[in-house]
Parts: sequence; structure tokens; C-alpha cells
Amino acid sequence: MPILVVGSVAFDSIKTPFGERDRVLGGSATHFSVAASFFTEVRVVAVVGDDFGPEEEAVFREREVDISDLERVPGQSFVWKGEYGYDLNVAHTLDTQLNVFADFRPKLSARARATPYVFLGNIQPTLQVEVRKQVSAKLVAADTMDYWIEKAPAELREMLKVVDVLIINDSEARELAGEANLIMAARRILTMGPTRLIVKRGEYGAAMFSDGSYFATPAYPLEKVFDPTGAGDSFAGGFMGYLAATNSSEEAAFRRAVIYGSVMASSHVEEFGCARTRRLTYDEINKRFRDLRSISHFEVAESPPFSRET
Amino acid sequence: MPILVVGSVAFDSIKTPFGERDRVLGGSATHFSVAASFFTEVRVVAVVGDDFGPEEEAVFREREVDISDLERVPGQSFVWKGEYGYDLNVAHTLDTQLNVFADFRPKLSARARATPYVFLGNIQPTLQVEVRKQVSAKLVAADTMDYWIEKAPAELREMLKVVDVLIINDSEARELAGEANLIMAARRILTMGPTRLIVKRGEYGAAMFSDGSYFATPAYPLEKVFDPTGAGDSFAGGFMGYLAATNSSEEAAFRRAVIYGSVMASSHVEEFGCARTRRLTYDEINKRFRDLRSISHFEVAESPPFSRET
Repeated sequence: MPILVVGSVAFDSIKTPFGERDRVLGGSATHFSVAASFFTEVRVVAVVGDDFGPEEEAVFREREVDISDLERVPGQSFVWKGEYGYDLNVAHTLDTQLNVFADFRPKLSARARATPYVFLGNIQPTLQVEVRKQVSAKLVAADTMDYWIEKAPAELREMLKVVDVLIINDSEARELAGEANLIMAARRILTMGPTRLIVKRGEYGAAMFSDGSYFATPAYPLEKVFDPTGAGDSFAGGFMGYLAATNSSEEAAFRRAVIYGSVMASSHVEEFGCARTRRLTYDEINKRFRDLRSISHFEVAESPPFSRET
Repeated sequence: MPILVVGSVAFDSIKTPFGERDRVLGGSATHFSVAASFFTEVRVVAVVGDDFGPEEEAVFREREVDISDLERVPGQSFVWKGEYGYDLNVAHTLDTQLNVFADFRPKLSARARATPYVFLGNIQPTLQVEVRKQVSAKLVAADTMDYWIEKAPAELREMLKVVDVLIINDSEARELAGEANLIMAARRILTMGPTRLIVKRGEYGAAMFSDGSYFATPAYPLEKVFDPTGAGDSFAGGFMGYLAATNSSEEAAFRRAVIYGSVMASSHVEEFGCARTRRLTYDEINKRFRDLRSISHFEVAESPPFSRET
């Protein structure tokens, strides 16, 4: 089954303790698409300016991502400048120029509207709701961020009512629920609309909550995180990509989807932008999947449950 | 196989967002012993003052912990006063009175010296080395803390050379190695002496590193953490207790030991001091063990490894 993603396509200027790069192709729709394209057909709804040229287009084309709904308007594309310190979990935004993204109103073709799996990347919640209303999807997942939790809480609540899966990070989950304990926070968020909540915890892995089920995985162990920009979107791409490819709504499929999300994010952060993800092979992806299983695997002892008396 | 633990027996005055208690029986040797006693015979080497009375003794006796090497001297026992905010990972020490603990020099009986499993609780590294030299154990594990990493780095390095397993928390591992990335930090610590490193990550679970093997588990999900004091020692108690009980040095046994450690710590924090741990049943312990397996379990799909092309 194909996936529709709505989000941003941007030029990122990124500085980390390990180097810097200017005008790297980024944005939630880009990172998501590249990751998800390893699993299924992806269609992108986003907006770019005149500076989006053949070189940028090639990133989508080489991954066979459908960009026929990518709107091109006069002006400059979205620009983000950011810096990371040694705590790579925290991005410090130096500059944001919305440019053509400021007036973005997603326009969906008939083909886009009929896509069964939809990912609403981190954009204004009212736009996410507008897109949601135009599609009759089997599964809709969304991301958001602290900015919308703080600046547009009412609009965000409306968005939550119309999505199936919310994919956010640890601190966002606590902030959204107004609850320091993550398990309590998750329980509260599941009353707001989504039937599943995926919490991304960076180097600590990921957790998935639904009514009656809880799943958690450690992260793939990395000796070097080069650039965390887009890791969350890459996770969402692997997660949704696997679900769409298998078209299953079984708990077991959702669990494997979390692992594929973790795998894609773990590779993504090893180079600037989506450079590493673009070069991934299925062997590499499936090896990390199996590695994550080995890392977290243990058996209940063959003997009866432990007791000192027995 | 029995376990010997060397550490502190203290009276803790604790304030958390959920309540406060004065003079609760605590200390590393206490928390460790109570947890480990569910798995095997435990012998305690520590020092207490005149204020250690029948009520405190009963905590050890009811768990059949051997306190014949518990030294009693005139004066007051170790007193710790601390407070936790909503971030329950960080204890704020309000007052520390070493009292009789200031002159503690562990004295081991012949029986103590012959114990095959030894846990060196968080005390001065030179004392840990002194104890290590007196035992001819099969397996020696140790804990330490940021205070010793900063104040006694040379002594700590000597201690690391003579232990098999180091059990510390996440921030301590990074500080000890002088390395922000935990995977790199662990690799460096494994060159300092221990052949295994266990990293406790609070609500994010635990990780185990050894040459050529990595294991990680999420934490048991808790909706309320009441008092984290002693959680690390309770983890060590479950970990060492299981290892000693099974007397195995297989990777699979070490992994199950990490899970039993996680289980004991998860119960420990649900009430003040070791009140909850004291009342645990084997059914409760084994249920959480199985729950942790369900939480982290996923299967590689029956189909061949995923590839969009196939």
C-alpha cells in the first residue's frame, strides 16, 4: 500500500560538534520519504521555491518517490539553521526563514486523496486537520512539536481527535499531557484521540502505547551520532513504511514497525542530512533489525519460575 | 551460592513530591541484602551504632540475612537526609552525618572471606580494595558514585582493576570515562578492569556491556515512583542474587540477572525505604520478569527479511 506524506521540504544549515554543512536538503517530508521509500511507494505533498533544482529533485527520483503533488512557487524554499552541542538531543535553532512555506496550503490530487496510509509531518495543526479531512485513509499518523503544544493547544487538540497514531518524542509527550511520568502521560494522551502513541526517546530507544498493550525497545547502539536532524522523521518513515508494506494492523506488525523505525533513525544520524539513508541497502537494514532483536533478547529460564525455596 | 555484601546501614530521612519519612532504615548494604535475600543466602559486613535496635535487626532477620559480621560500635549510625523533586532521577542531599561509619574498616570473618559472590557497595574505593583482597571470590561486583569519581580518581582506578563487574548509573559511566557517548564510554570502562559493565538508566531501563556482547532492556513501566532511594542497590541485589543462585557465568544467565535486577528495583521504588521489597512474593517477582519479556518481545517476520523488491 502506498503512503502519502505532508510536511516540509527545506534547506538546512547544520553545525554539530563533528562538523558543519550549509544548505543540506532536509525537512520532515524529505527525511520521511527517503526512509519510507525503502518499504513502499511514497507520495509527497509539500511546497518548494525556485531554489529547488534538479539536484534536489534527484534525491526523490532516485528513491522513486512520487513528487507530482510537490508544489513549486516563486521565491525561496524553507530555510532552517541550527546547532547541536554535545547533548545531541537538543537542537538550538539559530534562524528560521519560512519563505514559500509561510503560505503553504496543501493541495491534494485525487490520487493523493485516495492514499491508504497518511503521515502528517510536523506542520501547523490546522493544516494537518485540513489534509486529514481530504483523505479517506486506512491509517493516519501525525507528528507535532513543543512549539504547537505551547502556541496552538486548541488546534492541536482538534488534530489529535482525527488521527490514529501519534509519533512524538519523550519531552513532547510529557508536555502535551502535563504529566512528568511518561506512563501516566501516555495514558492521558490515549484519551485525546489516537489509539496508539509512539514515543521516541533518542539514545534510549522507543516505546509504543495502546489500550492494553505496551512495547519498548532500546535504541541501536551507536558510537557516533553525527547529525540528529531528521531522525524522528526517518523513524516515522521506517515505521509507516513497514506498516504500509505489510498492510497489517496486528500488534506484532506494529512492534516490528517500531523496530524498522528505530533501524532507519539509527542509520540516519550517522551522516549529515539524509546522505546515509539514501545509500542504505536491504542487507544493512535487515542486519540492524536482527541486531536489535539479539540486543534485547532473553529467555525465561528453562526451570520453573524462580523461587529460593524450590 | 551465598553472597557477601559490604556497604552502609543508615537511617534515611527522605522527602519526595509524594510524602516524607524520618529515619527509615536504609543504606546500600540494607537495600542490597533485602533484595538479594529472595534469591540466596546473604552475609552483611557493615557498621551500626547504638541506635540500631531490635526493630532494625528484624528487617534482616525476617529475610534470613546473616548479620553476624555486622559490627556494632558506640555512637550513632550513618544518617542521610535527602530530597527529590519531580525529576526523581536526582537526589538532593540535605545532610550527611557519617557518625560511626566515618571510622568503618570492614572486618571479615573466615566465613565471610570464603563467600563466592561479593558485592562491594558504594563506599570509599580503598575500603572496597581492602575487602577485595581478603576474599577469594568467584565473582566480585562493585558500585561507586560521582563523589568518588571526582574526589578519589586514583583510588577508584585501583578498585576497578580488581573487580569483575561494575554496576553504575548512566551519568556516572559517562563521567568515569570522560565521554558523552555511552557506547564509547562503556568501551573505555571495559579497558579499566571489569569484564562486564552494567549501566542503570532509571526509567529508561538498563544496559549490559562485555567484550563482544551488548544487552539492553527497557524498565518495568511504573505509573508512580514513590521513593527512588536504594533502587540501584536493590537492582544490584536482584542481579547478584540471581547469578549466585544459579552459579552460572553464561551470557543468558547474566541477561536474566539484569532482568531480575530491574524487577527488584521497580518494586523497590513503589514505597519508602525497603518496605515494598520486604513484602514481595515470588509470584510478584516472576510476574514482572515475564511482563518485561512481553514488553520487549518481537519476532522477526516469518517471511524472508524485508525488501521492497521481493
